[in-house]
Amino acid sequence: MAGNTFGHLFRITTFGESHGGGVGVVVDGCPPGIEITEEEIQKEQDRRRPGQSKITTPRKESDTVKILSGVFEGKTTGTPILVIAFNQEFESDDYIELKDVYRPSHADYTYEAKYGFRDWRGSGRASARETLARVAASVIAKKYLYKKLGVEIISYVESVGNIRTDIDFENVSMEDVEANIIRCPDPEKAEEMISLIEDVKEDGDSIGGAIRGVIKNVPVGLGEPVFDKLSADLGKAMLSINAVKGFEIGSGFEGTKLRGSQHNDPFKIEDGKIRTSSNNSGGVTGGISNGETIHFRVAFKPVSTIKKEQQTVSKNKKEVTLSAAGRHDPCVLPRAVPIVDAMSALVIMDHYLRHKAQNL
Amino acid sequence: MAGNTFGHLFRITTFGESHGGGVGVVVDGCPPGIEITEEEIQKEQDRRRPGQSKITTPRKESDTVKILSGVFEGKTTGTPILVIAFNQEFESDDYIELKDVYRPSHADYTYEAKYGFRDWRGSGRASARETLARVAASVIAKKYLYKKLGVEIISYVESVGNIRTDIDFENVSMEDVEANIIRCPDPEKAEEMISLIEDVKEDGDSIGGAIRGVIKNVPVGLGEPVFDKLSADLGKAMLSINAVKGFEIGSGFEGTKLRGSQHNDPFKIEDGKIRTSSNNSGGVTGGISNGETIHFRVAFKPVSTIKKEQQTVSKNKKEVTLSAAGRHDPCVLPRAVPIVDAMSALVIMDHYLRHKAQNL
Amino acid sequence: MAGNTFGHLFRITTFGESHGGGVGVVVDGCPPGIEITEEEIQKEQDRRRPGQSKITTPRKESDTVKILSGVFEGKTTGTPILVIAFNQEFESDDYIELKDVYRPSHADYTYEAKYGFRDWRGSGRASARETLARVAASVIAKKYLYKKLGVEIISYVESVGNIRTDIDFENVSMEDVEANIIRCPDPEKAEEMISLIEDVKEDGDSIGGAIRGVIKNVPVGLGEPVFDKLSADLGKAMLSINAVKGFEIGSGFEGTKLRGSQHNDPFKIEDGKIRTSSNNSGGVTGGISNGETIHFRVAFKPVSTIKKEQQTVSKNKKEVTLSAAGRHDPCVLPRAVPIVDAMSALVIMDHYLRHKAQNL
Amino acid sequence: MAGNTFGHLFRITTFGESHGGGVGVVVDGCPPGIEITEEEIQKEQDRRRPGQSKITTPRKESDTVKILSGVFEGKTTGTPILVIAFNQEFESDDYIELKDVYRPSHADYTYEAKYGFRDWRGSGRASARETLARVAASVIAKKYLYKKLGVEIISYVESVGNIRTDIDFENVSMEDVEANIIRCPDPEKAEEMISLIEDVKEDGDSIGGAIRGVIKNVPVGLGEPVFDKLSADLGKAMLSINAVKGFEIGSGFEGTKLRGSQHNDPFKIEDGKIRTSSNNSGGVTGGISNGETIHFRVAFKPVSTIKKEQQTVSKNKKEVTLSAAGRHDPCVLPRAVPIVDAMSALVIMDHYLRHKAQNL
Repeated sequence: MAGNTFGHLFRITTFGESHGGGVGVVVDGCPPGIEITEEEIQKEQDRRRPGQSKITTPRKESDTVKILSGVFEGKTTGTPILVIAFNQEFESDDYIELKDVYRPSHADYTYEAKYGFRDWRGSGRASARETLARVAASVIAKKYLYKKLGVEIISYVESVGNIRTDIDFENVSMEDVEANIIRCPDPEKAEEMISLIEDVKEDGDSIGGAIRGVIKNVPVGLGEPVFDKLSADLGKAMLSINAVKGFEIGSGFEGTKLRGSQHNDPFKIEDGKIRTSSNNSGGVTGGISNGETIHFRVAFKPVSTIKKEQQTVSKNKKEVTLSAAGRHDPCVLPRAVPIVDAMSALVIMDHYLRHKAQNL
Repeated sequence: MAGNTFGHLFRITTFGESHGGGVGVVVDGCPPGIEITEEEIQKEQDRRRPGQSKITTPRKESDTVKILSGVFEGKTTGTPILVIAFNQEFESDDYIELKDVYRPSHADYTYEAKYGFRDWRGSGRASARETLARVAASVIAKKYLYKKLGVEIISYVESVGNIRTDIDFENVSMEDVEANIIRCPDPEKAEEMISLIEDVKEDGDSIGGAIRGVIKNVPVGLGEPVFDKLSADLGKAMLSINAVKGFEIGSGFEGTKLRGSQHNDPFKIEDGKIRTSSNNSGGVTGGISNGETIHFRVAFKPVSTIKKEQQTVSKNKKEVTLSAAGRHDPCVLPRAVPIVDAMSALVIMDHYLRHKAQNL
Repeated sequence: MAGNTFGHLFRITTFGESHGGGVGVVVDGCPPGIEITEEEIQKEQDRRRPGQSKITTPRKESDTVKILSGVFEGKTTGTPILVIAFNQEFESDDYIELKDVYRPSHADYTYEAKYGFRDWRGSGRASARETLARVAASVIAKKYLYKKLGVEIISYVESVGNIRTDIDFENVSMEDVEANIIRCPDPEKAEEMISLIEDVKEDGDSIGGAIRGVIKNVPVGLGEPVFDKLSADLGKAMLSINAVKGFEIGSGFEGTKLRGSQHNDPFKIEDGKIRTSSNNSGGVTGGISNGETIHFRVAFKPVSTIKKEQQTVSKNKKEVTLSAAGRHDPCVLPRAVPIVDAMSALVIMDHYLRHKAQNL
Repeated sequence: MAGNTFGHLFRITTFGESHGGGVGVVVDGCPPGIEITEEEIQKEQDRRRPGQSKITTPRKESDTVKILSGVFEGKTTGTPILVIAFNQEFESDDYIELKDVYRPSHADYTYEAKYGFRDWRGSGRASARETLARVAASVIAKKYLYKKLGVEIISYVESVGNIRTDIDFENVSMEDVEANIIRCPDPEKAEEMISLIEDVKEDGDSIGGAIRGVIKNVPVGLGEPVFDKLSADLGKAMLSINAVKGFEIGSGFEGTKLRGSQHNDPFKIEDGKIRTSSNNSGGVTGGISNGETIHFRVAFKPVSTIKKEQQTVSKNKKEVTLSAAGRHDPCVLPRAVPIVDAMSALVIMDHYLRHKAQNL
C-alpha cells in the first residue's frame, strides 16, 4: 500500500517526478459549487516557485498549472479534479554523473534499496517539485474553509539557524509575511536571516530553520479520537514534507519542563463564549480543536544538496568524493511557508468533512 | 469518519471507556502462525499499569487481558484477534462532581462540544486506560518483528522537567531501562528525576518530560513516499498518545541550527555494507528507513489532573474554582515508555507488511 | 489487508468464531445521541437465531448480546460501540472427526490453504454465527435511518427451489413477512415452500432460494460514482453473506433481454415531484439513488452441510467418504432475511454519511 | 468520501469527463520493475474504443494514451503511474439541447440532485469514456499476473437479448473471442447476435445482454473473509461498470433451484493435487479462490440512449418529449468485454497483493 494519497474525505493523490511528463494531483471528495480558477492556484504556486528571490535556487521550473477535470463553468462539480503542471524538456545529462552515486542524507540510497532501481534524474519522486501538487489542491480547500468558516492560515519563518523571532503569532498578517523575501514578519530578524543565508550560500553550504504554523478561527470540535487527533494529523502532514525533522504543537518540548499548574490553560468566559486565558495547548485539547488559534512549529533540516565536498559511496560500494554541481536552495524555509500553509489547509478541510459526516 | 483505527495492513481498532464494560482491541490483518499467550500480553501491560510504584497513581485498575478470538491452539489464525480487559464495578459517584465542570487542558469541553454530550465517568474515551489496548496489540507485532527481522524496540525516559540524560541510545538495554521505577537508564539522573517527581507530588502538582524512542535493526526500505513517510507515521503514532505535544526524529529541532555540511550523514562502507558515519537522519532518509538505528524524541506535557486549585468554567458558563480530588500520576513518563514502544511496534509492523505487499 | 471491516464512515469490524470466546462487532463513526438498548438489538437477533422453527437447524446457540462500550445513559456517544455475544462452553469433540477432512463446497480447504492451518471447530470464522455481529450493528443504523429519513427496509423470501412468488414488493409490510416461518409474504407460496423444505430435510439434503431486498424512502442522491455506486456497494454487501452466489438490481438478468425503449424508466411529475413510471432501474440510476424504491434479488445456494453421503478428500490427500452428522439448516433462506436487511441498512447508512460529508 | 478509487494495495484513481481536458488514471502501489509501454496500453484500448465496427457507435473519440509518470526506462518505478488520454476539441453545442432535460434511465437527474448542478456536456463523469482509465490501469496488472502467476483472463459475450451461447468457458481462447465483432466465441450465435443488433439499430433502439467473465490459473488463497470475499469484490467491480444490473458467480441464480447434494462440488485428487469434479462454486469457496477457474456472468441492460421518442421531464419540472439525436451504441456488449477483463485483472491483482502482505 503505497503512500501517495493524503486525507480521507477531502482526498488528494499526487503523482509525477521532477523529470518526465509532469507533476500533479487528483482531488477527490471536493464539495461541489466552489468557484476556482487556474489563476488562483497559480498565484499560490508563485509563493513556492524556485527562482523567486536572491536567496532561493536560481533553477527555473515551469509550474504553470492546468485544471483538466472536475471544474465546469468555473465551479467544482463534486467529481475528481485533476490539476497538473507539465514538465519542460530537459537535459538528463545534467544528472548523469549522479546516476551511480548516493548523495548523503538524500533519498537516492533508500529509494534504490526499496524499489530495486530509481529514476536518477533530478531527485525523481523525492523531488520537492512534488509539493507543487499539494499546494494546488490546498488552494481549493483554503477557499472553502475561509468562505464557509472564516478559517485563516498564516504561517511564517520563525527561525533560521540561531536567529529566531519571538513575535506574537496572533498579530501576524499575510501582508507582514509577504513583506520580505524570507517570509519572517519581524523586519529586523528578517534582515539578519537574509544576511545569514547569503553567507551560507557563499560558502556553498545550506542552513536549517523552523516555521511557525498558524490557523485561526477553526471551529470547536475538529479532530477524531483516539488515533486521528487533530494534533496527530497535523504532525503527520508536516512530517510528510521534505526535510522536516520535527513538529511540536502549543508549548511543545519547552512545555515538558513546566508543572501542570503552570501549563494548564484555565477556562474563562469571554463575550459569553468559553475561552482559555493561555494557549499552551496550541488550540487542540484531547485531540480536538478547542476554538483557540492553532499554532505549532515545524523543524526543517538544512538542505542536503550542498556544493561543498562530501564523502559518500557509489552503487558498487566504492567510497567516493562528491561535490554537487547543481543549483540548490541554500535555505528551504521561505519556499516552505506556502507548503506548511497547504498542509494545514488539507488537514483542516479533511477533518471538517469528517466531523460534518458524523456530528453535524 | 471516526479515528479509532490505526494501521492499514496490521490494523487495530480500539474501543472502550475507563468505565463501562471494558477496554480492548480488534487486530485485523495479523499474519497467521504467530505463537502468543495471554501471559505475554499481560507482562507488557504490567509496565503501563497504574499503581506500579510510589511515583505512579495509586489508583487500582483491573487490566487482566483475555484473548477472545483469532488465536487457536496458541497461534494466531489470520482472522481478527480480540483482546479485552473487562472493567471492574465502580462508583460513578466519584466523578459526579465533575459532571458539569470542564477540567482545564482536559478533553471534557472538546468532547462535549463535538458530540453534544459526554460520558463524564473517569475521562470516558479520553482516558489513558485506552492505551492498554494499543499495548495489547503491539505485543503480537513486537514478537513477529523480533523473530522475523531481529527488530528491537527499547525506549526510555530521557528527561523529566529540566533533568535530562545524555546517555547514548545505542548502548541502552531493556535491563537498563527496567532497572529503576522512572525507566531512565542513567542511574544518577534517574535518582534526580524520582526525587523531583516526589516533590511535585507533594505539591499536588504534575511535571512533564520527554521519552527517547529507539528502534534497532529495522531493514532498509520501510516507509511509503510521499505522505506515509516512516518518520511521518511515527510522528502521528506518537502524537496520538495522550499528553504528547511534540515529536522530533534524529537531529530534530536542534538540527535546524546546523549547516548542511555539518548535518549530512556521510555514507561509508562497513563490513561490506553501506552505512552512515553519523545519524542525524534518525534512521530515516527520504521517508524510508536506511538501516541505521531509528531514534526520536516525544514530548509529554505535565498531566492535566492536579490537586492544586484552578480556575475553570461549568457547562452553564459560570466561572468556578476546581480542586481535583481524584488520584493521579504526578508524572506520566514512566508509564508512557511501554506505550511509545507499542506505537513503534505498530508502525514498523504495518510498514513492513506494506513494503512486503508491493516490493518483496 | 484483511477484510473484516465494512463501511467507510459508519464502519463496522466484526470478530469471533463459532467456538472460542465470542462473536461481536465494533461500530466506529456512529453519530452520537441515538437511543439504543440491548433489547432492541436482541429482538432482531431473534429473527436470525437457529432453532426458531421446525425448518431451521435445531442447534442451540447463545446469542444474548451485550453492549460493552460507546453507549452512555441509553444513547450512543459517538465513540466505538462494542456489541458482543459470548460463546457457550462446548464439546469440541463434536467436530474432531472433521479435523482432517475438507467438506465439499465449504471453506475448510480454502482457509487452510490461505492461512496454513485453521480453527476446525464449527466452521471457525466462516461460521454463519458471524452474521450475528452484522445484525447487531445494523439495528443502530436502521433506527437512525428510520427516524432521520423515514427509510424502511423490508426484505422477504421470494423463492425456494422452483417455488417463486410474484407478489409486488411495493405492497409488502413487515407484518406480512413475519406472518409465517419461511418469511414469504405470499401465504400460499409460503405453505408450498415450507412443505418443500420439510421434504428436503427428510432426505438429509438442502435447498437454495432467493431473497427480494427492498428499501423504501431512500433520499435522492446516495451513491458515489464511479466505483462506489450504490448498486455496486449493495451488491458487494450481499455477496459478502455466506452462501450468496448472485445479486441483481431492478430488472437484473431478465432486463438484458429487453430493448432500451422497453427498459428505460420514463420520468413524470407526480405531486410536484420528479418520479418514474416504471422501476427497472431498481431505484438506482448512474449509481445514485433516484428516490424510487430500491429493490434487488439475492441468490442463496443450497447449504453445503448435508447428511447425505459425499465424496471428498482429507488433508493428507486421500479420497474419503463423508456423511455429516451435525445438525444443519435444510434451507438458510428464512434466517437470511434479517441478514439481507442488516446489510441493506449498513450500506444505506454509510452512503448517507458519505453523501452528507461532501454534499449536504 | 467520494468513490473514484478502486483497490486497496493496487489502487487506481480515475478522473475526467467526456469533455474537458482529458480522462485518465493514477495507479498507486504498483510493484516496481514491470516492463510496460504506451503501445501495450493502446492495444487494449482499441478493444473498447468506439467506432471499431458496424455494430458500435460511429462516434470518433481520441483515446491515445500517454504515460506521464511512474515509468522510467520502460519499467514501473513503484511510484504513481499517470496514464491520460487528452480529450479533443469539441462543439458543446451538440449537447446544449440536453442541458435542461433529464434523459430516462441516465445519470442526468441523479447527478444534478446529488451535486446541485452538473456538467451536461456528453454525460460528464457518467460517460462510458471513463472506463478507458480502468482499462489502462488493468494492462499493467494483467501483465504482472500473467508473468508471475500465469493468470489468464478471457471473457466473452454470452448472450444478446434472447440469443445465448452455451459454449464451455473452459475451452475458449482469446483468438476465439476476437474472431468476430460481437466477441462471442460461438460463430453461429455470433452471427445471430450481430443480425439482431443491426435490426435494433435500424429501429433506433438498443438491446442488452450478458458477458461471461473467466479467470484461469488463479492461485488458491485469494480473497479476504469476511467482507472482502473474492466473489464480493468481483461483484462490486462488475456492478461498478456503467449499465450493469446483475452479477452471479458459478451456479448463480440457477443454482438456487438445486439441492445441496447436486450443487456441492466433490473434492478429488488429480495429478496429486486437490481439485473438484464440478465447478458450481465458480472457483471461489468461502470467499477464497480454490484453484478452479473463476467464472461469472454480468448483466448489461440495454443502453439508455435511444433514438426513439421518449417521455421525460425537464429541470423546471415540465413533462417533455425527447428523441436523442446523438450517435450511440445499439448494444454495449462487444465493447464491454475488455472492461470486464479489466475489472477482473484489477480485483485479482489487488487481492494477490493483499494475500501476499499477510500470508506469503
